[in-house]
Amino acid sequence: MNESAVSSTPVVHPLTQAQASLGDSLRAVELVLDQTSQSTVQLIPEVSHHLLGAGGKRIRPTLLLLMAQAADADLDSAVDLAVATELFHNASLLHDDVVDRGHLRRGVAAAPRVYGNSASVLVGDFLMARAFGMVTQHGDLELLRQLSLVISAMAEGEVLQLIRSGRATLSLPGYEEIISGKTAGLFSWGCRAGASLGPRPAALAEAAAQFGQAFGMAFQIADDVLDYTASPEQSGKDLANDLRQGKTTLPLLLGCEQDPDLLSLVEEAAASPSNEEPCLAIVRRVLKTEAVALALAKAEQYTQRAVDCLDVFGKSPAAGHLVELAHYITDRVKLSS
Amino acid sequence: MNESAVSSTPVVHPLTQAQASLGDSLRAVELVLDQTSQSTVQLIPEVSHHLLGAGGKRIRPTLLLLMAQAADADLDSAVDLAVATELFHNASLLHDDVVDRGHLRRGVAAAPRVYGNSASVLVGDFLMARAFGMVTQHGDLELLRQLSLVISAMAEGEVLQLIRSGRATLSLPGYEEIISGKTAGLFSWGCRAGASLGPRPAALAEAAAQFGQAFGMAFQIADDVLDYTASPEQSGKDLANDLRQGKTTLPLLLGCEQDPDLLSLVEEAAASPSNEEPCLAIVRRVLKTEAVALALAKAEQYTQRAVDCLDVFGKSPAAGHLVELAHYITDRVKLSS
Repeated sequence: MNESAVSSTPVVHPLTQAQASLGDSLRAVELVLDQTSQSTVQLIPEVSHHLLGAGGKRIRPTLLLLMAQAADADLDSAVDLAVATELFHNASLLHDDVVDRGHLRRGVAAAPRVYGNSASVLVGDFLMARAFGMVTQHGDLELLRQLSLVISAMAEGEVLQLIRSGRATLSLPGYEEIISGKTAGLFSWGCRAGASLGPRPAALAEAAAQFGQAFGMAFQIADDVLDYTASPEQSGKDLANDLRQGKTTLPLLLGCEQDPDLLSLVEEAAASPSNEEPCLAIVRRVLKTEAVALALAKAEQYTQRAVDCLDVFGKSPAAGHLVELAHYITDRVKLSS
Repeated sequence: MNESAVSSTPVVHPLTQAQASLGDSLRAVELVLDQTSQSTVQLIPEVSHHLLGAGGKRIRPTLLLLMAQAADADLDSAVDLAVATELFHNASLLHDDVVDRGHLRRGVAAAPRVYGNSASVLVGDFLMARAFGMVTQHGDLELLRQLSLVISAMAEGEVLQLIRSGRATLSLPGYEEIISGKTAGLFSWGCRAGASLGPRPAALAEAAAQFGQAFGMAFQIADDVLDYTASPEQSGKDLANDLRQGKTTLPLLLGCEQDPDLLSLVEEAAASPSNEEPCLAIVRRVLKTEAVALALAKAEQYTQRAVDCLDVFGKSPAAGHLVELAHYITDRVKLSS
């Protein structure tokens, strides 16, 4: 094979490969997602579709289905639970966009900017109720019990983030507490749910939950790094979106440790939130430190922890995809920076 | 007994009497309500307590407990479900106060005015998740399934109200569709849940649900009438709160049928929403028509329908309290006007 042939081979991303391996199941997820957001009240599917139709990687349903496959479960039985994870995620995005006053989401105007805060709050409630309904239909009370804990912990994580906004002095454990609640819990629940569908839930569900927890931590750290490194075209969100909202994430936290003068810049930025320049100055200054590399190293620790949890599953194509996806979390950040 | 002795006898309201008959169960509800809104994230119990501690009549828990008692159920087993109804109601109030931008609730500043929209949205989510968790603990999947339908229908009712705001030409069926979703559904579910705890759920649960549905319709109509007749001291809300938010409720709808000139006043008011005078002019004009009397007559039809549903329960003190409460819905409006 000559060099030009190599360079013209398109790179197939691990997520694309994993999703292709799931074939019809993921198409079924899309179909049920669409059905579940229907209502005789036309504004509801309209707002839902604005968000669900704007793309989104469907990473939560993908993980749940792969975990079901790795646990030798029937994939058909996993579709409704996969839909539920995506519905909860979208409900929380609708509410987050009200809370954060974000302008862009998945490359399009955030729902509250188009439909208003009221519709976004209510459609979020609608999707959350529908998602609980789907898991109820599934009939596993223990999964439901854990789900309600995860959903209340998501709200707790978001409230913690709200309380701690504007503080560059947030500690690493404080940051991890926030992202564990707001992000990792739902990943963990989805992976547990997928593995619990197979013939050996007692042997696999806990390991699956731990994989999901570590995966979710790595995923959120990578997302927080992208806030500093990715262009709006790449992330589908505003540059330094978190920073503008006063959110202290891992890159800033590590940046301040390396460059203590950053603290006063953060205070200045918090004092004039409508002014863009101080935020951009902070981004430039953070990028001059080792913060991004250190944050990615932290994410990779979580990735490794996730991968280690997969040992009990044995070798299978699905387990292989899960490993690839775990590594892809940080790889995609490196590609963007 | 002389006249002065009669006039000094305090009037004991049916709600007070009913609640006194429930004794410890209602105290247990308060205790569990408080426990369930606890969190290591201090702002969450603070916001919850701002709303839950400001009073509220606890009418949903009261109905559920009375219905359990009327169905010969053990009241202890009903406490958690009673707490769940109150939690859902409070979660929805927190979200409504974001949606409606109300200033007063239960006589104190609405939570979003004190803690901001973000905290109100997130604490609402937290309480909703906790409420689903409590019903999950109870373990009746059919009740859970119906609950998720009720909660999504609550959001649908609220969205309908949002879409139809500013329209004085709303039809009676259109109005009833809104209040059935946003209010009557949760009453209906709570009554069904209470009756399902007894030894004869197949015979009683459906009648209980129909009682709750009709009770909820009467309750919301009465609440909507109070928006026109009660002072802020009586209602704990701003006068003409609904009207200021462009909500067309039954008194306005009936007022416009009797006095077609009201339509243009409503359009004027909608054009300058910050101006208070046009709203107060509409209230005065509505009160000159028969609208309030007609609305109360409609509520009384629902009350009668509710009372008729109780026949299958036979006579008992609890059933007697339910009848009294149903009649009290409209009586308290007459007392206030």
